[in-house]
Amino acid sequence: MNFCSDNVTGASPEILAALSAANGGALASYGSDKLTERVEARLKEIFETDLAAFPVATGTAANALSLSLLTPSWGAIYCHQDAHIAVDECGAPEFYTGGAKLVDLPGEHGKLTASQLSDALARSGKGVVHQVQAAAISLTQATEAGTAYRPDDVAAIADVARGYGLGLHMDGARFANALVFLDANPADITWRAGVDILSFGATKNGALAAEAVVIFDKKRAEEFAFRRKRAGHLFSKMRFLSAQLDAYLEGDLWLKNARHANAMAKRLAEGLMAVPGATLAHPVEANEIFVDLPETAIRGLTADGFQFYRWLGEDKTLLRLVAAHDTKEADVTAFIASAKRHAARANERVA
Amino acid sequence: MNFCSDNVTGASPEILAALSAANGGALASYGSDKLTERVEARLKEIFETDLAAFPVATGTAANALSLSLLTPSWGAIYCHQDAHIAVDECGAPEFYTGGAKLVDLPGEHGKLTASQLSDALARSGKGVVHQVQAAAISLTQATEAGTAYRPDDVAAIADVARGYGLGLHMDGARFANALVFLDANPADITWRAGVDILSFGATKNGALAAEAVVIFDKKRAEEFAFRRKRAGHLFSKMRFLSAQLDAYLEGDLWLKNARHANAMAKRLAEGLMAVPGATLAHPVEANEIFVDLPETAIRGLTADGFQFYRWLGEDKTLLRLVAAHDTKEADVTAFIASAKRHAARANERVA
Amino acid sequence: MNFCSDNVTGASPEILAALSAANGGALASYGSDKLTERVEARLKEIFETDLAAFPVATGTAANALSLSLLTPSWGAIYCHQDAHIAVDECGAPEFYTGGAKLVDLPGEHGKLTASQLSDALARSGKGVVHQVQAAAISLTQATEAGTAYRPDDVAAIADVARGYGLGLHMDGARFANALVFLDANPADITWRAGVDILSFGATKNGALAAEAVVIFDKKRAEEFAFRRKRAGHLFSKMRFLSAQLDAYLEGDLWLKNARHANAMAKRLAEGLMAVPGATLAHPVEANEIFVDLPETAIRGLTADGFQFYRWLGEDKTLLRLVAAHDTKEADVTAFIASAKRHAARANERVA
Amino acid sequence: MNFCSDNVTGASPEILAALSAANGGALASYGSDKLTERVEARLKEIFETDLAAFPVATGTAANALSLSLLTPSWGAIYCHQDAHIAVDECGAPEFYTGGAKLVDLPGEHGKLTASQLSDALARSGKGVVHQVQAAAISLTQATEAGTAYRPDDVAAIADVARGYGLGLHMDGARFANALVFLDANPADITWRAGVDILSFGATKNGALAAEAVVIFDKKRAEEFAFRRKRAGHLFSKMRFLSAQLDAYLEGDLWLKNARHANAMAKRLAEGLMAVPGATLAHPVEANEIFVDLPETAIRGLTADGFQFYRWLGEDKTLLRLVAAHDTKEADVTAFIASAKRHAARANERVA
Repeated sequence: MNFCSDNVTGASPEILAALSAANGGALASYGSDKLTERVEARLKEIFETDLAAFPVATGTAANALSLSLLTPSWGAIYCHQDAHIAVDECGAPEFYTGGAKLVDLPGEHGKLTASQLSDALARSGKGVVHQVQAAAISLTQATEAGTAYRPDDVAAIADVARGYGLGLHMDGARFANALVFLDANPADITWRAGVDILSFGATKNGALAAEAVVIFDKKRAEEFAFRRKRAGHLFSKMRFLSAQLDAYLEGDLWLKNARHANAMAKRLAEGLMAVPGATLAHPVEANEIFVDLPETAIRGLTADGFQFYRWLGEDKTLLRLVAAHDTKEADVTAFIASAKRHAARANERVA
Repeated sequence: MNFCSDNVTGASPEILAALSAANGGALASYGSDKLTERVEARLKEIFETDLAAFPVATGTAANALSLSLLTPSWGAIYCHQDAHIAVDECGAPEFYTGGAKLVDLPGEHGKLTASQLSDALARSGKGVVHQVQAAAISLTQATEAGTAYRPDDVAAIADVARGYGLGLHMDGARFANALVFLDANPADITWRAGVDILSFGATKNGALAAEAVVIFDKKRAEEFAFRRKRAGHLFSKMRFLSAQLDAYLEGDLWLKNARHANAMAKRLAEGLMAVPGATLAHPVEANEIFVDLPETAIRGLTADGFQFYRWLGEDKTLLRLVAAHDTKEADVTAFIASAKRHAARANERVA
Repeated sequence: MNFCSDNVTGASPEILAALSAANGGALASYGSDKLTERVEARLKEIFETDLAAFPVATGTAANALSLSLLTPSWGAIYCHQDAHIAVDECGAPEFYTGGAKLVDLPGEHGKLTASQLSDALARSGKGVVHQVQAAAISLTQATEAGTAYRPDDVAAIADVARGYGLGLHMDGARFANALVFLDANPADITWRAGVDILSFGATKNGALAAEAVVIFDKKRAEEFAFRRKRAGHLFSKMRFLSAQLDAYLEGDLWLKNARHANAMAKRLAEGLMAVPGATLAHPVEANEIFVDLPETAIRGLTADGFQFYRWLGEDKTLLRLVAAHDTKEADVTAFIASAKRHAARANERVA
Repeated sequence: MNFCSDNVTGASPEILAALSAANGGALASYGSDKLTERVEARLKEIFETDLAAFPVATGTAANALSLSLLTPSWGAIYCHQDAHIAVDECGAPEFYTGGAKLVDLPGEHGKLTASQLSDALARSGKGVVHQVQAAAISLTQATEAGTAYRPDDVAAIADVARGYGLGLHMDGARFANALVFLDANPADITWRAGVDILSFGATKNGALAAEAVVIFDKKRAEEFAFRRKRAGHLFSKMRFLSAQLDAYLEGDLWLKNARHANAMAKRLAEGLMAVPGATLAHPVEANEIFVDLPETAIRGLTADGFQFYRWLGEDKTLLRLVAAHDTKEADVTAFIASAKRHAARANERVA
């Protein structure tokens, strides 16, 4: 009954099975194997375009390496102030870019807007040697607030990026969750809208530890291989990364997992709306819920053994609840019931 | 019949099984789990001392992160000219240290000596602001030549390191292979001899992708956690790294695997000594063989489907042959037979 | 009639003369000369304490090198959002620190406060591996708004810094201007208040190109020499940097220059207050004035040949006017007269 | 009577005078001034081509910034093992390039050869992800051994560079000394021969602290301005750097100074050849002499007050003697006489 994050979960059985299946016999190392080739081929089909795909094991590596292709060391990367790259990666983008600057902007429900970016870039001192130079925009899809950029949102932001000659990165640690919510074509919310590089997440959605850096603008791909190796993110037994991604894509497991997680989140949100005093901070569009609950309900849930984060600090009543590929409906039901029961008791006492 | 490297192999069945066993239920992420704790506890037992252990997924990450603890950016790291850190990591140590310099020295059979290091350090310009400052020594155990430093070798080099105030790193990508050859106590060839940080390898010896950075000098460990995270090498689902290491150590699987690989290498070497014209470039002390074979034998072996590297380039007759945890005795026997057969035919033609 | 900045000026004649005086004969290079020694001795007297002083040629070098002593690459430096290090150095602090993060905070009249820093640091995730770690605070004295921190302000902020184990840096590009305004003892607004490292500026106040990094916490000085050399900021003919600083300090030239600049700024501010519609954005405590003037006055001044910056952009009526060591009283008088005349005409037209 | 280096000298009177001449009135900062423009124009004339020129204050800055334009962080820079960038800059190239590798090669009389580079590059693992990628060659002109590359030497090496797609940098800290020795056209030993970037030295040849980075391949120049600023090497009062370079070039002062230094070195070398037991280690082609002298002569010279370096260590009899723009003929004569006298006495004693 752990709703802390989608990274407290294990892996999908299909993905574990794929590791065993990949284990037989000698295979060329460092990615010169058929499995790795097949993962790239699958991604080309899914995204309906030529692309270069590089498996890595963590989202931080995927993001930081991606950004290092899009900015010089004296560049600036524009992102939401709650973006994982800005607050949860211990400065990995700065490390990988040789000290580029993250310009973090506010934005309702975790989203940036084209007009806001346009304004910020107009003031950014382009060509002025004293200022870092705008080089990239990074969007998170789904956002850190559990919402999703619509295809038009992405396209409008990409237009701004192109206007200023910037690269556009998408942190897709929860890309599948956004995709199934939007019921969109993967191409339409990425390269067709103007995304240059996508961190295509799998770990949070059923893999053990696997992400793919998907580079749509292939001329930017040339240096990726060197950067990945130099950072120690090139696996010698690459088959074991690729096997995870292969199984993740096989038979649309990735979409199935994301649909389940989203459905559980939606059910949880709907159930909690019946709790007196409960309010949602953001629309629930993916697998995360940000809900304000009465303190008594929170304490009761904790006493009942549910685990979750108080989002803004230990004295706050805003909770983040994350559903995952393996969240059980029974746990969701039990969570709602517990919240209702404890909230009701509090009201009785007050009454 | 692939003798290219110990990284073309798959994983030990016990390690794959451990992944499945670790998969059940929610578990705290980022290493705050019991499995990760147990790996550290096991390593404390094995090395008979307190220590800090940090799982990472690649040897390059283990080495480069380790070295970043031992040198400032204006420091120099002394190593063998064939060391993995010097020639096979695309500059990862330079990246992680902010541009420290590798001073690479020659040395017979892949080994550095205390007297050679002492001489080099005496000329190193200590305190002179124009020169990078000697900061660390890195030894590879087993070496890139398939040989092993004796405990006394390590201790003598550690004495030199201490005399100059340097840190001592050991690249133990094949630590187990050296250990079983030496029939030594793990503590005696590491911290008791003066090693500060060990890259404790598992990937080449049966894991999928797992190494542990073992920090004996715990005051140096404080910053490791931040450096690992910042580099994208902290796994969210850490259980899957730790499970590999746990199974690797359980029941001495690591030693069993290394003994097998070494035995196969020894058998291969002995067999090849019966091939006319064959000579060994280095003593065979671990799981690697460097053997000079007649060109006809090499071509014949290739024709028979054996895979291996010509070590110094495509026109050279020095081969590197690597045995691994899963090398089959039958393949070794076949290799020897093929080599003999083709060498003999060549002699017939000459005669 | 150029009020753009104190860096559009030339050098004090005394400082130019010192270069010639230093020119005779051979002298040990790289700072092993008597002049460099004397500069350090003078600074020890002025600051009434032991210290280490390192001449460099630019303020950006002084600041960025100083900060590199106070933070690891995964650290955060807290500063005002208008600080030179945050907006005018093209990311030099990020470059020199290996990618540390500047956390820029707002603050009235260019100043940070102890309580604001205390609040920010309480939320900073100390010890949390996912977040960069607070490592230093940088204050600008005089500030970018032309104001000065009082000794108590500095001490209160230093208390916060100590409480969190942070280093305290002072960007003193206009240190002399603040000092003479405060009529303070140099020690009292630096090390006695808790400053660890001071970028002691001279360039803006009469030197050609000379600053001294003054390190009060001498154990932090050990690595400075290597960092300076490695960055190409160690002059071979150091005498020519030191001679500037020596003449700057000789006979209190630095204080005399700053008093003149401040007096000119004060006179300018007072005069402009008589211009209808003119308002000051900040108290005038050093040599900079931020004044809002009617658009007609601005255009008139430009037509009359005065040079200055519109501070927030080309469509804004807030001007920054900077007085310097060599600003002529007649120019100040002429500026005021021009502003009055053009503002009055505008009123006539309106009437 | 100091022959330690050409950086123990002062500045040419003409250059000091130029500083005073540049001091009058306000002038746009950061290089937007006429003097800086004129320096670039003069360099265009001298090199008979369009180019971009950036003044900086030190040779280390000139070299390291130049190299940062020519290599990615995973690149390798090929240079002579005695090159200033390899042994005297405390790792500045590594710092500025984000950790690129210097591959230092031996070479008679301080010179690399085209065939040697060609061999080394053929073995460099181009395109192999595990190895750093050859990116640039750096030549020193005049070399650290006091010799000069002939135009054909440079052209042959440039051919190799082009063949491998490498940039070609020339460290011209003593460019003028080589030029006057070769009696060459500046264009012929730089861009026409294939040099992309030249560190055009002035400090050692009469300036206080001034070098120009001359970028012939202007498309590489775009990023230089940002890199220079970000490193703190952009002077606010740029006029004082440019004035030095302007006076240095005016009336061929730079050639006059270099001719004098070379003549003094030649005279010194010829004189010392009459000392019994004296041998030259390298041809004397610029302003440096490497001479092996009898120990008694060395001690006698020291006792007579002459200063110089024993080149390979305190127990070695190879001296480096450097003549400069202001070396007095009388000092040279006195040095020779002292050496002869002390060497003769030793012989008497032996006899």
